[in-house]
Amino acid sequence: MAVNEVYQYSLISALMDGVASNGIPISQILSHGDHGLGTFKNMVGEMIVLDGEVYQMKADGSVVHIDPSSTITPFATVTKFQATTTTKASLKDGKKDLQSLLDKLHPEARNHFLAIRMDGVFKRIEFRTAGGQCRPREGMVDVCSRQTTHTFEGERGTVVGFRCPEYAMGINVAGDHLHFISDDRQRGGHILGFETEGEVEIGVAVLSRLNLELPKGDEEFDGAKLIKDEEGIKAVEG
Amino acid sequence: MAVNEVYQYSLISALMDGVASNGIPISQILSHGDHGLGTFKNMVGEMIVLDGEVYQMKADGSVVHIDPSSTITPFATVTKFQATTTTKASLKDGKKDLQSLLDKLHPEARNHFLAIRMDGVFKRIEFRTAGGQCRPREGMVDVCSRQTTHTFEGERGTVVGFRCPEYAMGINVAGDHLHFISDDRQRGGHILGFETEGEVEIGVAVLSRLNLELPKGDEEFDGAKLIKDEEGIKAVEG
Repeated sequence: MAVNEVYQYSLISALMDGVASNGIPISQILSHGDHGLGTFKNMVGEMIVLDGEVYQMKADGSVVHIDPSSTITPFATVTKFQATTTTKASLKDGKKDLQSLLDKLHPEARNHFLAIRMDGVFKRIEFRTAGGQCRPREGMVDVCSRQTTHTFEGERGTVVGFRCPEYAMGINVAGDHLHFISDDRQRGGHILGFETEGEVEIGVAVLSRLNLELPKGDEEFDGAKLIKDEEGIKAVEG
Repeated sequence: MAVNEVYQYSLISALMDGVASNGIPISQILSHGDHGLGTFKNMVGEMIVLDGEVYQMKADGSVVHIDPSSTITPFATVTKFQATTTTKASLKDGKKDLQSLLDKLHPEARNHFLAIRMDGVFKRIEFRTAGGQCRPREGMVDVCSRQTTHTFEGERGTVVGFRCPEYAMGINVAGDHLHFISDDRQRGGHILGFETEGEVEIGVAVLSRLNLELPKGDEEFDGAKLIKDEEGIKAVEG
């Protein structure tokens, strides 16, 4: 795969329907990208892929550096990230300000995918971590009803994420989807809100190719009713 | 690209919104597949790709064998087709019976894509051909309101198509999407209904990877509001 293409394994709709028992080795994901996010078997924790390293951010607050050959993922989105636009900005109303900035930087890209990276200090950053399924096939809305949320202040770290176009809803999450990890790799999760401490460095790439890989020979995936639960996806991934 | 993967250029939602002025050379499409369907600049006619040959089926009933290096397409879906299941069947209630047969042959594939090929004699086959846009950005619903429909009886030929899962609606057409061309390459179009004359040969392949290429540097695509008009898509592509 070339730089700045999306590689995705499985569907957000499948996670919504609780398809998270099987997957592919993370080493296989890394052959397609060095920057991205996802989850783990049984939705235990949040995945961040940063500079080709993979971290599992768990609900108990711990962060595990993952061995990609011995760990599988039921859902991940990655790219070989090469920022085509870089800037510095102060974002007071985190996600909203980021959205406005992206619209301004890339007005031509509303029907394309964007990969995003931000490095700097965050005055306030709220994130959640999903603890995992209580039973096989438990859907994501139920899993996330038990999510742990944290707020950190003055944390230096990196945000990795994507913005997906509206028509991709169900396949992925329409809008922005951002994960955070601290510089010391001790804290992180799925971002609910943030405010930067002064300016942070922002790198963006426009992605115009989606390579979507569906699970093969996976009875759980094959048996799932993949309805597009837009409200549900917005509630747990917004 | 390996055999039995989907390669798609642009989105059905873009066609719905009348994005059909630009595109990529069909020779580029053929590097990704030898079996498929699509349309042409300004939606003039229906495209069928059969054994690597490309035909334009026009509203006046003519069929043109296309030079792939000098013709562009604003939307196409192809695969390097290698049937993994072959059978013979008599389909009285064409599309409905085909759907039941596919469900029976591949119950595990409802969340995957299918490529389909049928060869034989068709007792009755109804198809339409879109005549093209009257103006740039004219949407597909309006284009198809002027479509020409034909019914042929006792026609020998080939059906090429895909079945897409529900979650792909908007990106492509959920459900089946079939084009027909006669053995003598003189007649064909987008299939509305059919009945086979006795048994026809049917080949099917399950496709578990979608490679979606979005138009790059295309102001018409970039400016389009890609709402997912499910009813509209069903009306013109069902």
